[in-house]
Amino acid sequence: METDAPFIRWAQRVETALGHALPSASLPPQRLHAAMRHAVLGGGKRIRPMLVYATGAVFGTDERWLDTPAAAVELIHAYSLVHDDLPAMDDDALRRGRPTVHVAFDEATAILAGDALQSLAFEMLAEAPVASELRVSWLRALSGAAGANGMCGGQALDVDATGQLQTLADLERMHRLKTGALIRASVRMGAMGGSIDEGTLKLLDTFADALGLAFQVRDDILDVESSSQQLGKTSGKDAAQAKSTYPALLGMEGAKAKLVELDMVMHDALAPFREHATALWALGKLAIHRTH
Amino acid sequence: METDAPFIRWAQRVETALGHALPSASLPPQRLHAAMRHAVLGGGKRIRPMLVYATGAVFGTDERWLDTPAAAVELIHAYSLVHDDLPAMDDDALRRGRPTVHVAFDEATAILAGDALQSLAFEMLAEAPVASELRVSWLRALSGAAGANGMCGGQALDVDATGQLQTLADLERMHRLKTGALIRASVRMGAMGGSIDEGTLKLLDTFADALGLAFQVRDDILDVESSSQQLGKTSGKDAAQAKSTYPALLGMEGAKAKLVELDMVMHDALAPFREHATALWALGKLAIHRTH
Repeated sequence: METDAPFIRWAQRVETALGHALPSASLPPQRLHAAMRHAVLGGGKRIRPMLVYATGAVFGTDERWLDTPAAAVELIHAYSLVHDDLPAMDDDALRRGRPTVHVAFDEATAILAGDALQSLAFEMLAEAPVASELRVSWLRALSGAAGANGMCGGQALDVDATGQLQTLADLERMHRLKTGALIRASVRMGAMGGSIDEGTLKLLDTFADALGLAFQVRDDILDVESSSQQLGKTSGKDAAQAKSTYPALLGMEGAKAKLVELDMVMHDALAPFREHATALWALGKLAIHRTH
Repeated sequence: METDAPFIRWAQRVETALGHALPSASLPPQRLHAAMRHAVLGGGKRIRPMLVYATGAVFGTDERWLDTPAAAVELIHAYSLVHDDLPAMDDDALRRGRPTVHVAFDEATAILAGDALQSLAFEMLAEAPVASELRVSWLRALSGAAGANGMCGGQALDVDATGQLQTLADLERMHRLKTGALIRASVRMGAMGGSIDEGTLKLLDTFADALGLAFQVRDDILDVESSSQQLGKTSGKDAAQAKSTYPALLGMEGAKAKLVELDMVMHDALAPFREHATALWALGKLAIHRTH
């Protein structure tokens, strides 16, 4: 794929930024630092950082400016996974093909590592070597997306709904907060370096919204159709926990039709940007077609 | 006490700011929002907000500017209590005379409420109606104090040390991070509205550092000498969990002598500010003499 080159470069950029930002596991408190590094540096698709860079590329933004928001949004995502995996939440032992943080370390360390990763995300943005106005814009976008009106709120709706029958509208509202808010923030942070009008912002929001849902629909499908080994995390958990999913509500064919619909929404939203959105469009396709 | 008047006013100001900032318990996800409000609005001494206002008063800073950092630091403190009280951490059922969040709600909700309170603290600062430069300064101070190099790091040292014999140097290092970092950040945020030289900042840091330790020494003494009813939280926990404390390391007389020493350090640090530091000095005295 001709768009591979920037993704490989961006992946290297964000790994470097994360490696520098995370505290060294040789400094005390070593156990906390090691847990933070385990949570973040254990692979992962880095979708949210890629969205930051790919959106910045639409506007020709200098990639060096984007390293900080790209790393910061990944820290928020990583912390949320650490806490979601805890016994009191999803009780998951496997993540990205490796033991989850509370399994590799212990529950107290997992709680604290998640907490410290969240702080670090905002600290990175606050310390970024760009104008204060841009730092504040990033901080508003990411903190709003992370909290009760975003990711945490969506996770709470998910916990509350487990074992209960949900409508499609409930399910979409939950996902729009739980995963959608952070994806929208990634795209918005990537766009903030440029000078952008309301119409452009609306197209990007539409794209991000559809991408977030597409990821979730695909996730639900993979949970049914794949093995744990393929996924790198425990498969079949949704059915075991009686969670509402797209395949459960729409049937497998309906869920796949929903993906096609979201594909078209993303296509239409990106069309006006033409070749400038090549990388964003590749990420949209990845959401639809990924196998793990 | 002649200094009561500003404290009553500041307490009202911060309660108002917190009440406005916290999401309504009548909006979904209701359970998460109710847990966040339970964690924050259930009383508490509001020491950190008082430090923000009292430090601002040294420099004649407009109190309206200080409402946001005062509320934000209390949100960070409140989230840390919610997580510290969890079964995997201190496993405490009582806080401020009321059931802890995981007891009143459930563990998953307590984890998420803590997470969302942390996001909200940074969101409030990022949205504050002041210049971007001041917002960024506050955000740097608070995020740095909250994370692995501050509060979370200190909590990790505390967890790691439980059941182990610590030296006095270990104990002080732990407390300087676990509670000291947030207290220093409170004083620093209160000072940031004014134009302050390095010497002044150093005096304030010295005061804040001594105040943080004094609070902890007094806390350790009260844990031995008071009942749960007097404290509004479970007493005698330190000995039961074999935690290193000042009375355990220095003896009760030694711990009380340490308080006298810290009293003098605070006095000397504030002396150059004369009557402008009346409120700060009253907070120092409170740390030394409080009975709950």
